[in-house]
Amino acid sequence: MSITAAQGFAAAGIAAGIKSTAKADLALVVNQGPRFDAAAVFTSNRVVAAPVIWSRRAVADGVLHAVVLNSGGANACTGAPGLEDAAATAKAVAQSVDCEPDDVAVCSTGLIGVRLPMAAVLSGIAAAADQLSADGGDAAAHAIMTTDTVPKQALAEGEGYTIGGMAKGAGMLAPALATMLVVITTDAEISAPDLQTCLQKATALTFDRIDSDGCMSTNDTVLALASGASGTIPDLDDFTTNLARVCWSLARQLIGDAEGASHDIAVEVTGAASEQDALEVAREIARSNLFKCAIFGNDPNWGRVLSAIGVTSAAFEADELDVTMNGVQVCRAGGVGDPRELVDLTGRECQVLVDLHAGEHKATIWTNDLTYGYVKENAEYSS
Amino acid sequence: MSITAAQGFAAAGIAAGIKSTAKADLALVVNQGPRFDAAAVFTSNRVVAAPVIWSRRAVADGVLHAVVLNSGGANACTGAPGLEDAAATAKAVAQSVDCEPDDVAVCSTGLIGVRLPMAAVLSGIAAAADQLSADGGDAAAHAIMTTDTVPKQALAEGEGYTIGGMAKGAGMLAPALATMLVVITTDAEISAPDLQTCLQKATALTFDRIDSDGCMSTNDTVLALASGASGTIPDLDDFTTNLARVCWSLARQLIGDAEGASHDIAVEVTGAASEQDALEVAREIARSNLFKCAIFGNDPNWGRVLSAIGVTSAAFEADELDVTMNGVQVCRAGGVGDPRELVDLTGRECQVLVDLHAGEHKATIWTNDLTYGYVKENAEYSS
Repeated sequence: MSITAAQGFAAAGIAAGIKSTAKADLALVVNQGPRFDAAAVFTSNRVVAAPVIWSRRAVADGVLHAVVLNSGGANACTGAPGLEDAAATAKAVAQSVDCEPDDVAVCSTGLIGVRLPMAAVLSGIAAAADQLSADGGDAAAHAIMTTDTVPKQALAEGEGYTIGGMAKGAGMLAPALATMLVVITTDAEISAPDLQTCLQKATALTFDRIDSDGCMSTNDTVLALASGASGTIPDLDDFTTNLARVCWSLARQLIGDAEGASHDIAVEVTGAASEQDALEVAREIARSNLFKCAIFGNDPNWGRVLSAIGVTSAAFEADELDVTMNGVQVCRAGGVGDPRELVDLTGRECQVLVDLHAGEHKATIWTNDLTYGYVKENAEYSS
Repeated sequence: MSITAAQGFAAAGIAAGIKSTAKADLALVVNQGPRFDAAAVFTSNRVVAAPVIWSRRAVADGVLHAVVLNSGGANACTGAPGLEDAAATAKAVAQSVDCEPDDVAVCSTGLIGVRLPMAAVLSGIAAAADQLSADGGDAAAHAIMTTDTVPKQALAEGEGYTIGGMAKGAGMLAPALATMLVVITTDAEISAPDLQTCLQKATALTFDRIDSDGCMSTNDTVLALASGASGTIPDLDDFTTNLARVCWSLARQLIGDAEGASHDIAVEVTGAASEQDALEVAREIARSNLFKCAIFGNDPNWGRVLSAIGVTSAAFEADELDVTMNGVQVCRAGGVGDPRELVDLTGRECQVLVDLHAGEHKATIWTNDLTYGYVKENAEYSS
């Protein structure tokens, strides 16, 4: 169950000394072919890190042989020197695994505005290349962790092919990608353009539907590599379904490990005039700090849900809104419903269901509560 | 320095038993004339409380004789019965002070989704009417407090007239009005339409430029009452300036008393291609939970400022952005600037200055940091 589950991939994860602790901080994933099709989705933030600039160019031709990822530094807002560092990183990987530098994607995560310790990065690449193996997926998944408490991996078996993935990310989880690095591998035989289409469909319904804290990172990257080693040409709809399964498993793991969170909250909006409306309402609720604090306090404060709905442009009438929390309809027709005391919010997972009574569309956004732990991690992270 | 500073106004503030504590919870403000011009600005939330529905109608003709305000319950999401409660409240005030019910504005603040204890409200109105006095402004300012730790009052002296005001609000402070109730009184002789124009200009530059936690209330109300008792017809530009001075003083007091906050943050954006761009960027930064946590931790984390800027649609180039925190330019041309160790964020007030280098426009939004205290107050508020 990892990025080395599919045939044709080797990986490694090592401690290169990029982090000040002795923890693993550099991962290498290599596609051994016979095909090297690749696809990618990046952050839509207009301020992007050097590795994103590099990797966008590298994947533009639909070919990648390797991905190198480091934790311990985001290489963001580091200007021209930062871009040179990303290029030097790719070059070192290319020499180690015998490919061209522009067939190497580079991903970095950690503090913004600090140069990477390049000596450590370059010696780490050589060490990782020596340890590449078809069993290295788990070590790689550990090496990309920052404030993650557990590694995130996922697997789906198609008819004659395998899709595996790994992810890191525990904060800055926002739409148009969570703050995260994701690598997905498959031994299916699929062209780069088809892989790109499938990846975009899958991420739109998975990573784009989680919103932990409303903050969008400068480094978000999802890469998909296809080796063709299974010899199986997949049905594209089936492939998209399986790919989305891997993406959703990873996305759910990200929400489940979000910084300091004590609840994973599914905000479901039904009865919307359009999917767009449903998403707007769900996102607005998911971003309400007052609502998120209430859930932390195990308080079914549906008034804060209505306050959030009220600032959207979605079609609804205030006196038709229903809100159900963990099965109890606490707000009916915009007013008081069943007793709030009936709602049990003590579990980790909870559900807020809003019916707009304005149509047939629906959507769900997953988010987290706002806790002391979130404040603590993000007040102390870089100090 | 209160709503009774201007000639022609009496007020009272009492404990009516609406709150479960014995604290003051009902305020009455009465305009004794000779004129009764009035203006108002309300929340733009589409889910509005019953008192907002009532007061919008009451002030529509530009005439108000009295305002009654209660803490201890927002009378929001209470349906038709809630609207009947607001009407009954206005009727009781009208009988007590000898005017028509539709010349009485009603304001409520507190928990959403709970009916007001009307027996307490009605007996409280009678008691408050008995205590009306030209010295009652301070008592009224105390009676409208919820999680406020101090009453908020302000005063401006024009040429031959006075403007006084009071406000409450300590959370849900967001654009298009903070979560707050504000009453402003003046003895200037000014028509209702002119007063409305001046009030809108003043609030757009004051209450609309504070954003404590990005949450917009269902009850926000700013009311202005003019008695004409000074006999002075003011210059309208001067009047607007003085009115904005009162509004800004109250707005700054709201930010200074925001729930659990430990920093008041001025987010100033300069070099913008338009004022709209400057406001969009300032608001996005002011709403970044990661940024707000960093300030709580006294951490000049300018990377989180850049991340926030990057999700806006404002005109800028990423490699031209400058960020200065409390006088230290920590980010220059999108990269590392002066040493972050030079930034002292230990004071209550701090400044984040962003230069977009894209034009000549600027704007400032005031916000707060995100603290343990904020989470605590909002996790426990209604439980």
